[in-house]
Amino acid sequence: MKVRFVLVRPRNPLNIGASSRAMANFGFGDLAVVKPYAPVWREAKSAVGGEPVLKAARDFASVEDALGDCALVVGTTAVRERRTDRPVVSLPDLGDYLRKHHPDIRNGTARAAILFGPEKTGLSGPYLARCQFWLTIPTDPACPSMNLGQAVALCAYEWARAGGTTAPVNAGTDLPPATIEDRRRLARHAAEAFDAVRFLPFLSAAEKIKKIRQRLLHWNLRRPDVALLHGFFRFVLKDRPRAP
Amino acid sequence: MKVRFVLVRPRNPLNIGASSRAMANFGFGDLAVVKPYAPVWREAKSAVGGEPVLKAARDFASVEDALGDCALVVGTTAVRERRTDRPVVSLPDLGDYLRKHHPDIRNGTARAAILFGPEKTGLSGPYLARCQFWLTIPTDPACPSMNLGQAVALCAYEWARAGGTTAPVNAGTDLPPATIEDRRRLARHAAEAFDAVRFLPFLSAAEKIKKIRQRLLHWNLRRPDVALLHGFFRFVLKDRPRAP
Repeated sequence: MKVRFVLVRPRNPLNIGASSRAMANFGFGDLAVVKPYAPVWREAKSAVGGEPVLKAARDFASVEDALGDCALVVGTTAVRERRTDRPVVSLPDLGDYLRKHHPDIRNGTARAAILFGPEKTGLSGPYLARCQFWLTIPTDPACPSMNLGQAVALCAYEWARAGGTTAPVNAGTDLPPATIEDRRRLARHAAEAFDAVRFLPFLSAAEKIKKIRQRLLHWNLRRPDVALLHGFFRFVLKDRPRAP
Repeated sequence: MKVRFVLVRPRNPLNIGASSRAMANFGFGDLAVVKPYAPVWREAKSAVGGEPVLKAARDFASVEDALGDCALVVGTTAVRERRTDRPVVSLPDLGDYLRKHHPDIRNGTARAAILFGPEKTGLSGPYLARCQFWLTIPTDPACPSMNLGQAVALCAYEWARAGGTTAPVNAGTDLPPATIEDRRRLARHAAEAFDAVRFLPFLSAAEKIKKIRQRLLHWNLRRPDVALLHGFFRFVLKDRPRAP
């Protein structure tokens, strides 16, 4: 997706850096800053080890200038009780919402902008009024207000996911799971080993196997687990007479 | 859900503060820090305007101490190509994964811990080896490594979402799950029983316990399973001299 992240009057240079880093983490590179305080902007741009995203970031004198080529403008806000005629979309629902209402954004043929307000106050009314919909992060009502860099990280994560652009994850070399037949054999072997050491003598062989199988079912066993347990039972049984 | 966020050797006090803030944003309050550098910890704890979460945060001398009462330990890692037999779960899939494999965590009857490594290096192998599954944030391969406070924010957001809403939990999971301490005791007992029957004689006691613990981690054990296995090991050991 083509998404421009727009920070309106950020006050803390570290937040500009953190925002650019989080954007890069999720494959976004288009950062715009509207009316930054001059020293803040200078300090952010000159940070040692700054991301390429930060180096390429542009500043604009007005939000209009920053949004000119965007087909969709989205405002972030924590203020949920504000009366509005705009749709308010909770961040986890973003993918569904874009799929339904903005397919051109989702398939990358049009550009979206997402606005973030100043740290202390968030986006004020006139900025929110320019947005087609509002995006809100479902935070705890006891502590609703998020750090700017973290809010940008969450939005970048969710926009990347909404576009299906997140990198696929290597599922790892997961070990083959034990089959039902593996468990059945293991339960029989366990019952023999239990008998050999006279554990649970008051249960019949059938009851013992049933009890063991009931427990084994939950264990999420893999092939190496099965081999390890069979090995142990073999050694327990070695050179012992079976119980009568 | 009951989730403990565990920071291992964080180097930057600001990251501890940012992590506690993000946790509070999503309703989490249990922060543990393992082996923090003393000045880092002092500075973080004394921060003006620190969150209640930060004030209540505890430091531990070892990761074991921090995890004792947890039934599930999850490690965060960016290293996707590492060869592993652990499931690697992508953050957006967390809810589904917990629903399927750890309903007791999802419904809040058992506690999970989620480990975050130091800023520069992430979690090293020995820490990852203690985890039942690995959680990875699907970042862009060109810029995979996230800021710690932002990674914590994303995990808090996704854990909160994973615990919300929907789906009754499947039956038969009402038995209390085994804790990490239960597993530790069980692994020691198993190693003694292995010795008694001279199973795996080529491994040292430490290697044996390590091997057993690695396997046990996956088994989704309940208290009755723990009792059953201890009972069996007791009978295997009965009237036998310990191996030299």
